[in-house]
Amino acid sequence: MFLRGAFRALALNRNLTPIAVRTFASKQREVPALTCDRYPVQRGSFAELTDDDVAVFRGILGGADTSRVLTAADEVQDYNIDYLRSVRGYGRVVLKPRSTTEVAELLRYCNERRLAVCPQGGNTGLVGGSVPVFDEVVLSLQLMDTIERIDEYSGIVVCQAGCVLATLEEQVGARGLVMPLDLGAKGSCHIGGNVSTNAGGLRLVRYGNLHGSVLGVEAVTAEGRVLDLMSNFKKDNTGYHLKHLFIGSEGTLGIITRLSMFCPTASRSVNVAFLGLHSYDDVKRTFLAAKRGLGEVLSSCEMIDAASLDSCTRFFGLQSPIDKYPFYMLIETSGSDAGHDEEKLARFLEQTMEQGLVQDGTVTNDSTKMKVNCISVNMITVFFFFDQFCVRIKSFLHLTLLRQPHSEHCILS
Amino acid sequence: MFLRGAFRALALNRNLTPIAVRTFASKQREVPALTCDRYPVQRGSFAELTDDDVAVFRGILGGADTSRVLTAADEVQDYNIDYLRSVRGYGRVVLKPRSTTEVAELLRYCNERRLAVCPQGGNTGLVGGSVPVFDEVVLSLQLMDTIERIDEYSGIVVCQAGCVLATLEEQVGARGLVMPLDLGAKGSCHIGGNVSTNAGGLRLVRYGNLHGSVLGVEAVTAEGRVLDLMSNFKKDNTGYHLKHLFIGSEGTLGIITRLSMFCPTASRSVNVAFLGLHSYDDVKRTFLAAKRGLGEVLSSCEMIDAASLDSCTRFFGLQSPIDKYPFYMLIETSGSDAGHDEEKLARFLEQTMEQGLVQDGTVTNDSTKMKVNCISVNMITVFFFFDQFCVRIKSFLHLTLLRQPHSEHCILS
Repeated sequence: MFLRGAFRALALNRNLTPIAVRTFASKQREVPALTCDRYPVQRGSFAELTDDDVAVFRGILGGADTSRVLTAADEVQDYNIDYLRSVRGYGRVVLKPRSTTEVAELLRYCNERRLAVCPQGGNTGLVGGSVPVFDEVVLSLQLMDTIERIDEYSGIVVCQAGCVLATLEEQVGARGLVMPLDLGAKGSCHIGGNVSTNAGGLRLVRYGNLHGSVLGVEAVTAEGRVLDLMSNFKKDNTGYHLKHLFIGSEGTLGIITRLSMFCPTASRSVNVAFLGLHSYDDVKRTFLAAKRGLGEVLSSCEMIDAASLDSCTRFFGLQSPIDKYPFYMLIETSGSDAGHDEEKLARFLEQTMEQGLVQDGTVTNDSTKMKVNCISVNMITVFFFFDQFCVRIKSFLHLTLLRQPHSEHCILS
Repeated sequence: MFLRGAFRALALNRNLTPIAVRTFASKQREVPALTCDRYPVQRGSFAELTDDDVAVFRGILGGADTSRVLTAADEVQDYNIDYLRSVRGYGRVVLKPRSTTEVAELLRYCNERRLAVCPQGGNTGLVGGSVPVFDEVVLSLQLMDTIERIDEYSGIVVCQAGCVLATLEEQVGARGLVMPLDLGAKGSCHIGGNVSTNAGGLRLVRYGNLHGSVLGVEAVTAEGRVLDLMSNFKKDNTGYHLKHLFIGSEGTLGIITRLSMFCPTASRSVNVAFLGLHSYDDVKRTFLAAKRGLGEVLSSCEMIDAASLDSCTRFFGLQSPIDKYPFYMLIETSGSDAGHDEEKLARFLEQTMEQGLVQDGTVTNDSTKMKVNCISVNMITVFFFFDQFCVRIKSFLHLTLLRQPHSEHCILS
């Protein structure tokens, strides 16, 4: 009708593994070279770990229960290698505190002993920032995964930093809320790591960045001091807002141990459109038309160029749902009324096609029929069909294809 | 029908002054006592202004053009008294720079001379924080009102800190955008003051707080150093986010001179419902129902208790649009499609009335027929009918009625 192929459901492609949980494939593949052999980095003058240190750690972390102080080489290895297996440290011990007090005690001791520490969340980062560069003590937040409170009235969740994003999403989802961020690694990344790295993700266009969503953090500084910057008040405008220093500072100012976050109301209806366009200028104008026409239901808007789509479809042996165009756009709406959302989307598509902005496209609102994943790294977005609706997995594929060199930052941090 | 009085337009009440522009009423009323006579505050050991200082200021600010260095007692007086006329300083000079460089030069000189400085925006604050306590030099941002750029694609406005909020609203509105904050003082408050005080305002429920909307600031520290923390990138997650220290720090860390802000797409349709409820518990449950049922179009939700409404209607000789109830709620929707919004609102009202949460109410989407203003201070909200649609004026009325004592903060800041 008005849109060639609009509301034409896409054929399923069920040959791919569902959701990529970014946990380690470390045992199956070659061990990467040591970071310090591969890059010209110099170890700082920090102390070396002794058996006495390990004994102190065991004293702090449960004594007889040895599962919270790992020292066996094979157990420690996974924590020394990043997800992409491109860098490797040689840390000799992994500590797994359960509480802020334990984190504080550990850091106080390490600071006194001048032992370097590498805090680690889900170890899903793609820039090598989550593993030791040398023999740093790894402090993993894995066991700090308690969800303390979800308030359905205020939409606020209070939790420990080691909670897995997908678990939080599930828990707040059960109360009609949605986490304000979503990213490919959600199956294993920690909310504390998301906040520490100021993760953007797919919902940024709708819900803004974490500086707006995070209401408070509790953090422990390197010398073991606990900073209580927690707040459960969305409209709090008192005093200095020091919590923001911890959002995106990647553990350099301290380790986030707890946080409170505002969760918006979940949307009941989701539509996705995949469009073909002639030029970058048309992409820009279509983006503007989407912001105006779809307004409050626009929840995602991504651009994909022909080269990115080609490399991806070839790599996975997939088929584009529409003919070849120099540019593609993926537009997602989500709202509280499916009928209204569809009507807005149909009108938007009709208008943009009439104006010659959009050349072709396909749309669906049936989550069992269309499975779209988008992978975007460094401003390049590729996509493929996958067995989870609207779970877009950032970057690992593209990094595999293009092998970007690591930034100085990630190696030296 | 389903709602007694729903979509029943309210009678106009045109007897009140339109929009309260918070500029000075200072000439008509009694001069308040000096802050230092009224409160036990001690002047710091800063220097006293001399004629030489004034000469230097004139040298920095245009020389022959004397309009930018005010010293005449009657001209200076307005800048020494706050909007509520409750505190008064005795600053002897008002400086009006036009550029960041001028601000830096002035602050550098004042710092060397140990002259205390009181930065001032629109002087619309209600806690006495915008005027000198003693004889501080007033540095007014009034002339720094250039809008440098509005990008309709990204929705980003870049401007000087002295831009009046209403002017910005008008300018971005012409490009289909809306400022992410709105408050009663918008006719005279400065955007730099809004950011410095981390103003919340009426749109917070929809667009979040300024930490999410402000993308960058340029600020000058007390010693005259210019900090460039500007960014035009919504997804910027590099480095420490120092700009957040300036959001809400009320000039104590430096003076904001420029900023960039993200503006959402403007909504074409607005509906307002005024509801009567039996209990606070019903208010809470109705709020939750509004978040879920109205979802993405809910743009404002305020509670008003009977005492607040009574005091306000009596004070202004106004009439409530509905019968007496222990609690009232004002719910606003705004969206891109009037029909959809009305449908959602009607359904929400039908459901909440059926559930016995909402007892009575009135709704309108006709901006010429219903003029509602809400005044809320310290968790108490009063309201009255006014000649501007959905402009809610915060607090001044209530302060007049109840005369809250000033907090320590405002006097000592």
